[in-house]
Amino acid sequence: MKLSKALMTTLREVPAEAEIQSHKLMLRAGLMRKMASGIYNYMPMGLKVLKNIEEIVREEMDNTGAQEFLASALLPSELWKESGRWDTMGPEMFRLKDRNEREFCLGPTHEEVFTDIARNEIKSYKQLPLNLYQIQTKYRDERRPRFGIMRSREFLMKDAYSFDKDNEGLDISFNKMYEAYHKIFKRCGLEANCVEADSGAMGGSGSAEFMIKSEIGEDEIAFCTSCDYAANMEKAPGTPEILEKEELNPLTKVETPEAKTIEDLVAFFNTNSKRFAKTLIFKADEKLVAVMVRGDREVNEIKVINALGGAVDFRMADAEEVFKATSAAVGFAGPIGIKVDCLLVDREVAELYNMIVGANDTGYHYINVNYGRDFEGQLGDFRKAVEGDICPKCGKPLTIARGIEVGHIFKLGTKYSKSMGANFIDENGEMKPLIMGCYGIGLNRTMTAIIEQNNDENGIIWPLSVAPYKVIIIPVVTKDAEQMRIAEELYNSLRKLGIDVLMDDRDERAGVKFKDADLIGIPMRITVGKKINEGVVEFKLRNSSDIELVSLDDVVERVANELDNIKR
Amino acid sequence: MKLSKALMTTLREVPAEAEIQSHKLMLRAGLMRKMASGIYNYMPMGLKVLKNIEEIVREEMDNTGAQEFLASALLPSELWKESGRWDTMGPEMFRLKDRNEREFCLGPTHEEVFTDIARNEIKSYKQLPLNLYQIQTKYRDERRPRFGIMRSREFLMKDAYSFDKDNEGLDISFNKMYEAYHKIFKRCGLEANCVEADSGAMGGSGSAEFMIKSEIGEDEIAFCTSCDYAANMEKAPGTPEILEKEELNPLTKVETPEAKTIEDLVAFFNTNSKRFAKTLIFKADEKLVAVMVRGDREVNEIKVINALGGAVDFRMADAEEVFKATSAAVGFAGPIGIKVDCLLVDREVAELYNMIVGANDTGYHYINVNYGRDFEGQLGDFRKAVEGDICPKCGKPLTIARGIEVGHIFKLGTKYSKSMGANFIDENGEMKPLIMGCYGIGLNRTMTAIIEQNNDENGIIWPLSVAPYKVIIIPVVTKDAEQMRIAEELYNSLRKLGIDVLMDDRDERAGVKFKDADLIGIPMRITVGKKINEGVVEFKLRNSSDIELVSLDDVVERVANELDNIKR
Repeated sequence: MKLSKALMTTLREVPAEAEIQSHKLMLRAGLMRKMASGIYNYMPMGLKVLKNIEEIVREEMDNTGAQEFLASALLPSELWKESGRWDTMGPEMFRLKDRNEREFCLGPTHEEVFTDIARNEIKSYKQLPLNLYQIQTKYRDERRPRFGIMRSREFLMKDAYSFDKDNEGLDISFNKMYEAYHKIFKRCGLEANCVEADSGAMGGSGSAEFMIKSEIGEDEIAFCTSCDYAANMEKAPGTPEILEKEELNPLTKVETPEAKTIEDLVAFFNTNSKRFAKTLIFKADEKLVAVMVRGDREVNEIKVINALGGAVDFRMADAEEVFKATSAAVGFAGPIGIKVDCLLVDREVAELYNMIVGANDTGYHYINVNYGRDFEGQLGDFRKAVEGDICPKCGKPLTIARGIEVGHIFKLGTKYSKSMGANFIDENGEMKPLIMGCYGIGLNRTMTAIIEQNNDENGIIWPLSVAPYKVIIIPVVTKDAEQMRIAEELYNSLRKLGIDVLMDDRDERAGVKFKDADLIGIPMRITVGKKINEGVVEFKLRNSSDIELVSLDDVVERVANELDNIKR
Repeated sequence: MKLSKALMTTLREVPAEAEIQSHKLMLRAGLMRKMASGIYNYMPMGLKVLKNIEEIVREEMDNTGAQEFLASALLPSELWKESGRWDTMGPEMFRLKDRNEREFCLGPTHEEVFTDIARNEIKSYKQLPLNLYQIQTKYRDERRPRFGIMRSREFLMKDAYSFDKDNEGLDISFNKMYEAYHKIFKRCGLEANCVEADSGAMGGSGSAEFMIKSEIGEDEIAFCTSCDYAANMEKAPGTPEILEKEELNPLTKVETPEAKTIEDLVAFFNTNSKRFAKTLIFKADEKLVAVMVRGDREVNEIKVINALGGAVDFRMADAEEVFKATSAAVGFAGPIGIKVDCLLVDREVAELYNMIVGANDTGYHYINVNYGRDFEGQLGDFRKAVEGDICPKCGKPLTIARGIEVGHIFKLGTKYSKSMGANFIDENGEMKPLIMGCYGIGLNRTMTAIIEQNNDENGIIWPLSVAPYKVIIIPVVTKDAEQMRIAEELYNSLRKLGIDVLMDDRDERAGVKFKDADLIGIPMRITVGKKINEGVVEFKLRNSSDIELVSLDDVVERVANELDNIKR
């Protein structure tokens, strides 16, 4: 492509709407433009990157034996009612009616569709294992779309669904995807961490997220710097801190009239927050549940829900419910005499001596409370992990970092096949539900993550594998006929080899051309300038500051050599 | 791909839901499955065909210098309000609201979006000409989705939009698309007719449809068997039939109490329908318009609208409006004394002698009416063309055939750039509206059309260019180790050459395999049977009944030779 004919508008100014580096650079490089909140159009160069990522994903999926499929985005409500998700998906699902008042949604995900296909097409174990995938547009009406295409409302996703006859088969299918995902992100030039994620009622290693470490990531991950352990915050274990032993003092009720928060209490008792245990009250479906964690910790709701064996509706209790449990105003809950269906106590709380807790009496707290002597509950790990918690694999301290989730692989088991009746006949002629897995990659988000990990003050530094063009040829003086002739010759030679090459034939100053080439991040730059008199051009890699002088005869080979590095 | 691992369910029975051959065959071959009325999922093999068509379209579009772009499908109402189409698109447009009650639609077409992009990105004539295209999902809530993917509600479309600085530029852009479309359909193995279509207020050769002749086509086309003229029915000219001259008889009013329709009148007057002129009354925006055509002809509303210089709202007048114009009940309208804003008279009516028309008096007709003597109006061509009308290019009679519209190219001019303010600065520093064209191809419909034109009683006959697999290898006896070994070797040799090959390694009878191979329409079949003892396999083309015996050493070359025929 010649830039004089290309639709490319680069911006020198940083657009006000963008907060993060990738979003700024995508706008400045003219890769995409906003259509509405969380909805974007891809300009030609941005689309080329997206298509390159798509092709890498497709190749690696095909290599696993998965078969590409294409489902509609417009989905009838009936399917979602079968699985029960029509009611539970909430406002994130775009809903609409057709001219005959039939209800549809725009698919935010496709478990129901693929389960429906499976129950219609799969009859026998002989057809298993099967993995169907699609690269298709998804719709999610995010409460807060942001960071450009990082969290958008219309986006491309590769979603795959595996069908197996037993759990051993699912393990194999899952591991194939695990391997494929590593290859995909590596080929995209990304360092992705596979992070253990919570898998709800499934347990085990049934769920893993692929995260790109990044300060602007919307998720936190805990990882070990000594071994390869990594987990998302829902899953990362909290290690109980063992404090110095103390004599047990007698339980005493103290009036604390104005003190409601931990901060108030720390000031009132002139001590530190480790001395306290918070008692939080939740409504889990029909149950009232109290959860205790140390005053400086936060409750991990996912761990609580798992301990309860799952909950469809889980939320903080309201003032009325708190009163029912404590006979007190909010702020004075404690374990002694509380009336709840279940009292969950974080193990760390059991390690405290002479702790301070609410007295279930408005305006009062207990001091010198001790687990075992004064109260008991169901012990477990119910708090969020923090920096310094212990790696469950090697025992070294964990570090917390932010990350961008680019992929998720998940063992579904029989969740959908049971609710939707997707069965097969096994070797013994018995009817059994299909064992399913699902596997997603966000393509647009992968594109953002690549930019987040590959940029400098001058612009994007595309990895060769996904770059919209591999080479840019810059004739320094467009009016110089000889420079243009040689640039044109090079351009044609590279194109003949099937190499995506861009030529900046615009009548612009060389400085502008170099700036644009850096901004849009083309991996290789060939500058055709005065030195052509000596038969030499300049060759520069975007990710290096070195400028090589290469003879005209060798430069095509130089480009081809770089490209060989990305061949699999 | 090995069929034992492929998701492919072929059906022996013809599914009840399908009416036309392509729909039946797509279901029987397991290429797609219905999700909801007019909404389909593509199974792996169907998707491969769609992708092959997509790739042909992309290559030919790229060859013209057009640049691929990707717009969202979810479009904010604001854009459509700017162009005025939010109100005029009607129930065909799927509409929805997001969680903040903002209105969106699912794009049925993208003129507004591309005009918006152009007005933001194009500043100067130096950026012109420009052609942007996308291959993207469109949504149209058809009143009557039918014939499978022929008329569906979610479908893939290639839509392109050209931007030029003047009409000469538009002509060039339009002609490039015209040429590209011919190449695309030819490469898809389709015989497409380019048909002049009506271009509304634009006039000239501003609109052309690419039609595939087919009995099941939803559109009618008029074409000349002597020259290359072809037009759709909206555009095809009606030639006035010249009848034998008669003496003019005196105008007479006759009571016709029960006769309201032409059939009634033919019986009442014991004559034929050519003796009559119908007067139909329409409401065109604020105007009442009467249109006269001969009793055996039909009014062509598009021709009428064009003669009026356009009409946003055009419909048959209701009884009240008819009464206002005629002071009579419906069925007695005529030209004499009619009170309308405009009386349009088809030229053929002026050629009638002593015709019969309504008397604008309930229960009465005039006989012996003659144009010029008894009434006058605006003469023109206002009727639908019929078989035998005269070709405007060569004067030979036209034939009428049914066709499937697979593409449409259209000169928009400044319709959208003016209403949405998409301007550029020309060579003289003057601000001017962009001159636009739009160009669409329905990819799914192209797939159906290919099947309609390429099938026999045994199934689909895919053209090589779009076939999901180019070759199918059938080992006759799967349990025969030697047959399987050779089949496997052939399979690997072909795959190494990058040839899409299918191997039917299922443990099925040879008859079943042959039937399936024919049904799914793979262009080349290699049968590995007993003759391998003599070093020979069977080679058969799907579109021929000949079975060639080819030596094992030559068969890969035989396949490669066939494929060379489709190389451009």
